[in-house]
Amino acid sequence: MTKAATPPVAIIMGSQSDWETMKNAADTLDALDIAYDARIVSAHRTVDRLINFARGARDEGFKVIIAGAGGAAHLPGMTAAMTPLPVFGVPVQSKALSGQDSLLSIVQMPAGIPVGTLAIGRAGAINAALLAAAVLALSDPDLADRLDDWREQQSAAVAEYPVDQA
Amino acid sequence: MTKAATPPVAIIMGSQSDWETMKNAADTLDALDIAYDARIVSAHRTVDRLINFARGARDEGFKVIIAGAGGAAHLPGMTAAMTPLPVFGVPVQSKALSGQDSLLSIVQMPAGIPVGTLAIGRAGAINAALLAAAVLALSDPDLADRLDDWREQQSAAVAEYPVDQA
Amino acid sequence: MTKAATPPVAIIMGSQSDWETMKNAADTLDALDIAYDARIVSAHRTVDRLINFARGARDEGFKVIIAGAGGAAHLPGMTAAMTPLPVFGVPVQSKALSGQDSLLSIVQMPAGIPVGTLAIGRAGAINAALLAAAVLALSDPDLADRLDDWREQQSAAVAEYPVDQA
Amino acid sequence: MTKAATPPVAIIMGSQSDWETMKNAADTLDALDIAYDARIVSAHRTVDRLINFARGARDEGFKVIIAGAGGAAHLPGMTAAMTPLPVFGVPVQSKALSGQDSLLSIVQMPAGIPVGTLAIGRAGAINAALLAAAVLALSDPDLADRLDDWREQQSAAVAEYPVDQA
Amino acid sequence: MTKAATPPVAIIMGSQSDWETMKNAADTLDALDIAYDARIVSAHRTVDRLINFARGARDEGFKVIIAGAGGAAHLPGMTAAMTPLPVFGVPVQSKALSGQDSLLSIVQMPAGIPVGTLAIGRAGAINAALLAAAVLALSDPDLADRLDDWREQQSAAVAEYPVDQA
Amino acid sequence: MTKAATPPVAIIMGSQSDWETMKNAADTLDALDIAYDARIVSAHRTVDRLINFARGARDEGFKVIIAGAGGAAHLPGMTAAMTPLPVFGVPVQSKALSGQDSLLSIVQMPAGIPVGTLAIGRAGAINAALLAAAVLALSDPDLADRLDDWREQQSAAVAEYPVDQA
Amino acid sequence: MTKAATPPVAIIMGSQSDWETMKNAADTLDALDIAYDARIVSAHRTVDRLINFARGARDEGFKVIIAGAGGAAHLPGMTAAMTPLPVFGVPVQSKALSGQDSLLSIVQMPAGIPVGTLAIGRAGAINAALLAAAVLALSDPDLADRLDDWREQQSAAVAEYPVDQA
Amino acid sequence: MTKAATPPVAIIMGSQSDWETMKNAADTLDALDIAYDARIVSAHRTVDRLINFARGARDEGFKVIIAGAGGAAHLPGMTAAMTPLPVFGVPVQSKALSGQDSLLSIVQMPAGIPVGTLAIGRAGAINAALLAAAVLALSDPDLADRLDDWREQQSAAVAEYPVDQA
Repeated sequence: MTKAATPPVAIIMGSQSDWETMKNAADTLDALDIAYDARIVSAHRTVDRLINFARGARDEGFKVIIAGAGGAAHLPGMTAAMTPLPVFGVPVQSKALSGQDSLLSIVQMPAGIPVGTLAIGRAGAINAALLAAAVLALSDPDLADRLDDWREQQSAAVAEYPVDQA
Repeated sequence: MTKAATPPVAIIMGSQSDWETMKNAADTLDALDIAYDARIVSAHRTVDRLINFARGARDEGFKVIIAGAGGAAHLPGMTAAMTPLPVFGVPVQSKALSGQDSLLSIVQMPAGIPVGTLAIGRAGAINAALLAAAVLALSDPDLADRLDDWREQQSAAVAEYPVDQA
Repeated sequence: MTKAATPPVAIIMGSQSDWETMKNAADTLDALDIAYDARIVSAHRTVDRLINFARGARDEGFKVIIAGAGGAAHLPGMTAAMTPLPVFGVPVQSKALSGQDSLLSIVQMPAGIPVGTLAIGRAGAINAALLAAAVLALSDPDLADRLDDWREQQSAAVAEYPVDQA
Repeated sequence: MTKAATPPVAIIMGSQSDWETMKNAADTLDALDIAYDARIVSAHRTVDRLINFARGARDEGFKVIIAGAGGAAHLPGMTAAMTPLPVFGVPVQSKALSGQDSLLSIVQMPAGIPVGTLAIGRAGAINAALLAAAVLALSDPDLADRLDDWREQQSAAVAEYPVDQA
Repeated sequence: MTKAATPPVAIIMGSQSDWETMKNAADTLDALDIAYDARIVSAHRTVDRLINFARGARDEGFKVIIAGAGGAAHLPGMTAAMTPLPVFGVPVQSKALSGQDSLLSIVQMPAGIPVGTLAIGRAGAINAALLAAAVLALSDPDLADRLDDWREQQSAAVAEYPVDQA
Repeated sequence: MTKAATPPVAIIMGSQSDWETMKNAADTLDALDIAYDARIVSAHRTVDRLINFARGARDEGFKVIIAGAGGAAHLPGMTAAMTPLPVFGVPVQSKALSGQDSLLSIVQMPAGIPVGTLAIGRAGAINAALLAAAVLALSDPDLADRLDDWREQQSAAVAEYPVDQA
Repeated sequence: MTKAATPPVAIIMGSQSDWETMKNAADTLDALDIAYDARIVSAHRTVDRLINFARGARDEGFKVIIAGAGGAAHLPGMTAAMTPLPVFGVPVQSKALSGQDSLLSIVQMPAGIPVGTLAIGRAGAINAALLAAAVLALSDPDLADRLDDWREQQSAAVAEYPVDQA
Repeated sequence: MTKAATPPVAIIMGSQSDWETMKNAADTLDALDIAYDARIVSAHRTVDRLINFARGARDEGFKVIIAGAGGAAHLPGMTAAMTPLPVFGVPVQSKALSGQDSLLSIVQMPAGIPVGTLAIGRAGAINAALLAAAVLALSDPDLADRLDDWREQQSAAVAEYPVDQA
């Protein structure tokens, strides 16, 4: 899943089941030619892994962390508590409450430890990648150009008129 | 705040501002003559303290942990992730969302790491203490008697008829 | 459904339809080798059964009660009103409101009668069993070891990397 | 608080603090010259009182029961489980969740045991009394006339135009 | 759909699509041998029909009205505004908001015009019929006996133990 | 409150208490020099008044109706059911649920009878007046100019920089 | 999709996926013989298109704008910010939150820029067309007649009694 | 309000009333010695200003944009639609819905245009500043040190034990 020796982005998620959602972040980073590492890090079931990852992320060379989780989603916030890197959180849609629990558990962080939160589900995963790209583009003109192109193509791809579909 | 050398109950909370709520747990334990330790442990701002406390709680001699927090309340769940002791969570009433965020962040834990969650605010803090007492009473007949008495007095204190109040 | 002459845990539920959820509590207790009794006790349709069960639970030898119900879920709270034993409530996912009604009906107990509430649905049922185990382990070193093992195995079972699935 | 030897309406409530709300039901019954009994019956703290009241209500001569409670409000539903009389529930406005918990705990009863639920708070208490009156008026022509008058006066009291107020 | 010359209960609903839900009320009345009339009365699309029905309901001989509607459900409240008879409202589960809109539109009536509201969907429809039966039973000893029997059979039908199902 | 013989706008509201909110609609119409009639029309307590007003509104000469109500707010929808004129609804902020009930009761109209719904409270009342102005301006060039001016002044009044305030 | 040289109604939507919902507005306008233009205008992906459309809409000859969008639905409000024409918003049902986000993003506009909001989904799309018709009918007697006919036919089409369906 | 010739951070807000909240972002940037510009930019009332600001922000030299707004909060998302810079959104607490509308209007952005969303109100404003600092620190070692210091001081400032307060 690692695309380069020192990828700037880490995508972490609470469980294998979150990958269906978080894969959209990976795909978007691929489209922008940004390397990343995708790992399962459960805040509740693999605390050591969480501590090691979050405390070592900056030294490991990561620049931005994308963290997805559902339900009582503690992974983004706990990661942010242990790294000074920017952390972007993706609320994964949960079964009973459709991600309302995930959203509030991620976005309502107390003053002092920020998590930049995206939309629930697939849209949020894609946008977490785009936000990571926007951050990295601040010091990477080539990426800035690629991101500009991506956005222009996105705009150009919007049809003028709706069409009926079978 | 410690009432005995080896208190069976730890009351932890995310910040000083939670004490107004969590003090109700302490007062209830006092009424039942159960010793406790009350500490501020911020899951986000004092991660080391959290890790040290949670991982050491059983060896330190605690039996039950009461954890109160508000907003994206990660303290109860992260504590439960690092100790096999029973953890009871109290959602502290938050400013904007009145504790709905606190409640969902605490109660919606994924399978594998349980937090027994009580009501939002003061009632929840009192009940966390009573639930801790019920647990401890399983192996402490004297406490079981005191808890029975407390419950009987509570029942006896309910007036038969409502009265108008100025 | 009874696995021993004097099982420490009672699993009660409001109706047969709750069993699909509550069976997860039973399976988890099985995995931890904890005996239990599973019964249908409807707070609304079988009040006598509720009163008899709840008032007699301690004398019958139960230590912990797991109660699951949906909608206007009164079973956990009413049971807690009639026994000093610890009661853990599982909000069963309801049809129209996805368990939001079940959750609030169980967790928002007034001061004086506590119900330790778990997550809505399957995760909550599993965690109710784990919380019961944590309580029983306080005075059962063998169970404490089994619970430690279970938690370690759970942690070890979390893969490092996500994988695409068909 | 009893206005007649055999009042047709019982107003019960979970605690003294509910009286501020439920007094509006009493005042409305007074205005319609309907006798009532007002009692505190806590589903959780005075279970015996609840059982005695609910099981004896029909034989005691009551026709309609108005039950008000807040939070995890189990009083109306548990009363309805133990009497064939019509039970009307009033969700008392709770502190953290403004009565959303009270409403769902009362109205979302499972099939088999009905509670006719009114609005949260004061309006609900007034309307519970009016609904009780409508029920009693079915077999009391004089009350039917008084209720018709009350409704006409209510209509006549609505001003045609709004006025500015200091 | 009319079972007798002067049925005591009217079941009205906002549209044909509500019948799937409201049929449960009809079936329950059938089981209790209570005659009823089932009609479509749209508060928004057939205002004349609503006015004629509601204003004439008492003179027509109805005793109790069961009204089901979904979304911005105005039928129960507008009916209650035009008749002194007891009106019981059933919130039909709506598509986008699962009946939360239906519930609030029915239950949150202002002081002065009561609607006794039941649960969202099928359970609410059944319970509206049971509540109507409870009201009618106040002056019909035979019905009171049938209702008692129905409740006893309901209780007796609850199995003691849950069973696994394919 | 009537400002002209044949005012194009009617402002109706469910009770005197709604005037505090709805006065903002009147003030905005005043600022745009649009005549209006403000009346109290309770859907529940003055049904005759509602029927007479709504059915006669077009013949009376009204062009647009602004209707404000709170709780189970049936006034806008019932008015729309009885007039072909455009009806704009203002959800008045309610006590327990802060206008969430008002909003859903007004906006979730079934297909066939539209109510154009504005924001909860004061902002909604102002905007109902502006929307009425936009409708009337379609056939009133002078009003179109006044509305353009009003919007330009609104834009010009927005300061460039925030200032601290005591 | 354009039915006339200068159609009075523009239907705009945020993406092709909204057409399934917004087509109901088009079909309703067709039934009333009102010409319209249907276009995709994404507030976020095609800002230039939005600006050009909204600023030019009045000069282009449009009278009323119907705008549908989902999630953080900014299209109706931003259009209203750039045109004095009446704008009617349709909240498209979103995946995770069922249109609750769409509804609040459209209806809760601040004072100064109104959007008349309809129900979530199909019903809202139909009603947006009917509301547009009601506005246009103010200065088009033929359309007023057609709208009256449509409403009468709608009323006449409501069956008196519900029927069981396979 | 500008603290430097080319400040890296822009703080924009929808109205003067948002400054009470957004000032917390400014104060936090001050504490970290990061220059910023604070401006009022209303998405609805000053569209030209929004377009000019957002489209010119990168060329003007800004690196990160913090945008706060309440209700149907379109400012963060519309800004993000017009700039490739990272945009962090702060939901300002609204009157009726306590910021739930602000939160959903900001966070639920469709795929393609990201807004990193922080908590409702003051905590969110502080955290937006900290997140901006984390982003800027990626290419500013001195700021990285200052941010590390700030975080350490924050941790050190958490008392070990709660204290009673008058």
